[in-house]
Amino acid sequence: MKHDDIRMRGFASRHDVDEALAILEQRIAALPSEVITLDEALDRVLAEDIVAAVDVPHFDRAAVDGYGVRARDTFGAFDYNPIPLTLKGEVLPGRALALVLGENEAVRIMTGAPLPAGVDAVVMAEYAEQEGDTVNILQPIAPLKNVGRVGEDIRKGDVVLRRGRKLRPQDLGVLASIQVAQIPVYRRPTVALIVTGNELVEVGEPLSGCSIVDSNSLTLSGLARRLGAIAVRKGIVRDDYHLIKEAIQKASEDVVIITGGTSVGAEDYAPLIIQELGELVVHGVAMRPSSPVGFGFIQQRPIFLIPGNPVSALVAFDAFVGPTLQRMQGLQPMYPYPKVRGQLTRKIASAIGRVDVVRVRLTAAGVDPLRITGASILSSTTRADGFVIVDKNSEGLDEGQEVEVYVY
Amino acid sequence: MKHDDIRMRGFASRHDVDEALAILEQRIAALPSEVITLDEALDRVLAEDIVAAVDVPHFDRAAVDGYGVRARDTFGAFDYNPIPLTLKGEVLPGRALALVLGENEAVRIMTGAPLPAGVDAVVMAEYAEQEGDTVNILQPIAPLKNVGRVGEDIRKGDVVLRRGRKLRPQDLGVLASIQVAQIPVYRRPTVALIVTGNELVEVGEPLSGCSIVDSNSLTLSGLARRLGAIAVRKGIVRDDYHLIKEAIQKASEDVVIITGGTSVGAEDYAPLIIQELGELVVHGVAMRPSSPVGFGFIQQRPIFLIPGNPVSALVAFDAFVGPTLQRMQGLQPMYPYPKVRGQLTRKIASAIGRVDVVRVRLTAAGVDPLRITGASILSSTTRADGFVIVDKNSEGLDEGQEVEVYVY
Repeated sequence: MKHDDIRMRGFASRHDVDEALAILEQRIAALPSEVITLDEALDRVLAEDIVAAVDVPHFDRAAVDGYGVRARDTFGAFDYNPIPLTLKGEVLPGRALALVLGENEAVRIMTGAPLPAGVDAVVMAEYAEQEGDTVNILQPIAPLKNVGRVGEDIRKGDVVLRRGRKLRPQDLGVLASIQVAQIPVYRRPTVALIVTGNELVEVGEPLSGCSIVDSNSLTLSGLARRLGAIAVRKGIVRDDYHLIKEAIQKASEDVVIITGGTSVGAEDYAPLIIQELGELVVHGVAMRPSSPVGFGFIQQRPIFLIPGNPVSALVAFDAFVGPTLQRMQGLQPMYPYPKVRGQLTRKIASAIGRVDVVRVRLTAAGVDPLRITGASILSSTTRADGFVIVDKNSEGLDEGQEVEVYVY
Repeated sequence: MKHDDIRMRGFASRHDVDEALAILEQRIAALPSEVITLDEALDRVLAEDIVAAVDVPHFDRAAVDGYGVRARDTFGAFDYNPIPLTLKGEVLPGRALALVLGENEAVRIMTGAPLPAGVDAVVMAEYAEQEGDTVNILQPIAPLKNVGRVGEDIRKGDVVLRRGRKLRPQDLGVLASIQVAQIPVYRRPTVALIVTGNELVEVGEPLSGCSIVDSNSLTLSGLARRLGAIAVRKGIVRDDYHLIKEAIQKASEDVVIITGGTSVGAEDYAPLIIQELGELVVHGVAMRPSSPVGFGFIQQRPIFLIPGNPVSALVAFDAFVGPTLQRMQGLQPMYPYPKVRGQLTRKIASAIGRVDVVRVRLTAAGVDPLRITGASILSSTTRADGFVIVDKNSEGLDEGQEVEVYVY
């Protein structure tokens, strides 16, 4: 029996969620940038402003199918007084016509085709009648009507997209249109996932009497990947001081996550190891679940202590690791969950000074807090549709109160 | 001059957006399923219900750090009348203790550790005082308190996740926890992107006088990839009947998108080719922009005619291709954009019978419709924060009216 060597350390002091996030905000910078092609660029984050070096379009073009004319030649035209113009040719997209339009002349022109010299308006096909090499114009047209001018989409010198922009599909199109084929983006952070616990086995391995499957590394790598990070699962490490220390020292990733053995119990080595190798900045946060969460820095690289309880692991990641991965990519931190509003079907009790993350279902009756609150009940996060955050200044939320739900 | 051979075909009849979507709903089925590992499963869609073959946990476990006891032994305990129990050992996660707890005995136990036989409650460390091999219990405890029972998370036989579920990070954790390492998911659709136009060059190629860069294939492949599809860019095809026909016939993907040359103009070959090779079901839809959109089927595979104007291309994809790719993955169609509500800063004119997709900015003043409405102005989709849909039964929306914005 060795009860005596069981250390019963307590959390020296708990941080507020806000304080802990402020520390991360101060300490975490964007990673260096790298240059990639547009094909790889979806959802990546621009590291520099992009300025157009060309006009789009770079030539005046027809905006409709019809007849290119000199607008002044059409003045006075109407249905019963059509003005005949002589057709001098046909212009299609990508095929310039080397002519200068003279008085009372016209060209057939298709949408997107370059205007020949002299053409300053395009009469839509329905306002003209073609007879052989003559086209009768049935309505007068104003200069520049149905014409796309040089630079009407993008002007040379315009800042087209700004640093920090998470690139959308249409952004890639715009970049292509200004002939930018490669762009500087922030590097994607790599994340080492170290899972500790004598009781853990990998998914698919046989379960013995009291072993359980490591589910956290799948959840956590999914969360990291969803935020654009590259998750590297380092496997399961036994609850052994030396093995855990070695795993931490070997990890060369931008961020280290260590889960399990992160609290203040007998076999919770990770906090001590971080103190030895670097600095343990936060350990214990006033939030529920996941109060044993913590983080520190080893040679300026962040290392997170994520509780082994699977619900706590999810909540702790969302609260602290997520914002870190977003900052490293030059983004403002933001939950990756859409928000909806609704009324609580029953009250939620909380305590002043503590942030509560409460799983809820969205039902016809409203926002229904789950009755299962245990941090070990992973299935509660799959049964839940999302969660509600009870602020630290709140004693709880009332039945019928309108709340914002983050939808998983 | 060959004006005579310019065909001036009109759209035979325009479909309502709803009619066109109803046809897709009827004709598009989920693709066959495939079996993948959990590591590949984020955001994939389950093709079958998943039933738990095991209980989670599969043994009774401690839910807190403390002392495992027989609850009845603690009855009558209070601060000034501690009840001494004899410590018989220590239980850590993953290390069962082969003993049967007797009367007035206790074990030291850590969160997640299996309960030894006879233990039916766990006294939290703060309600006990340990002295050598004795622990003094300071509060009575009810049976099952601080105990995680077999199956409390998931019961054998439970349907854990249902067919059609798009897998979240925590879902992967739950699947791991029930020892499911491989799952059946719907196959990801492959999408062939065929871009047509004599005026087009690839991004990075030199621009001549009236050529323009193909931006659509980047936008469209980004849109397809965001929805989980595998986009295959087939390059630029000249406006030539035979070349376009060959490109369509060669494409072996689940979905074909052809963009440019899709309307009713002189060089719009694609609609004719679809009619020859299969059936052109919809050509022309009552929506703005992107009214020339269409689709058909060649040997049951959908082929979409997407207008070459870049804004129309985006809107047409979102309206028709997106829902198709979602249905093929077993999902209910849904815009992949979060929604916010706001008040219009000025009115939007529309026409009954037509759906309008209006790009807007979200400003301090409210939801601000962009003044640039041209379908050729791609940069309007990057300047916009999102869009508002004006229903076909509406003549427009009033200044100050509350609207729903889909945020890009």
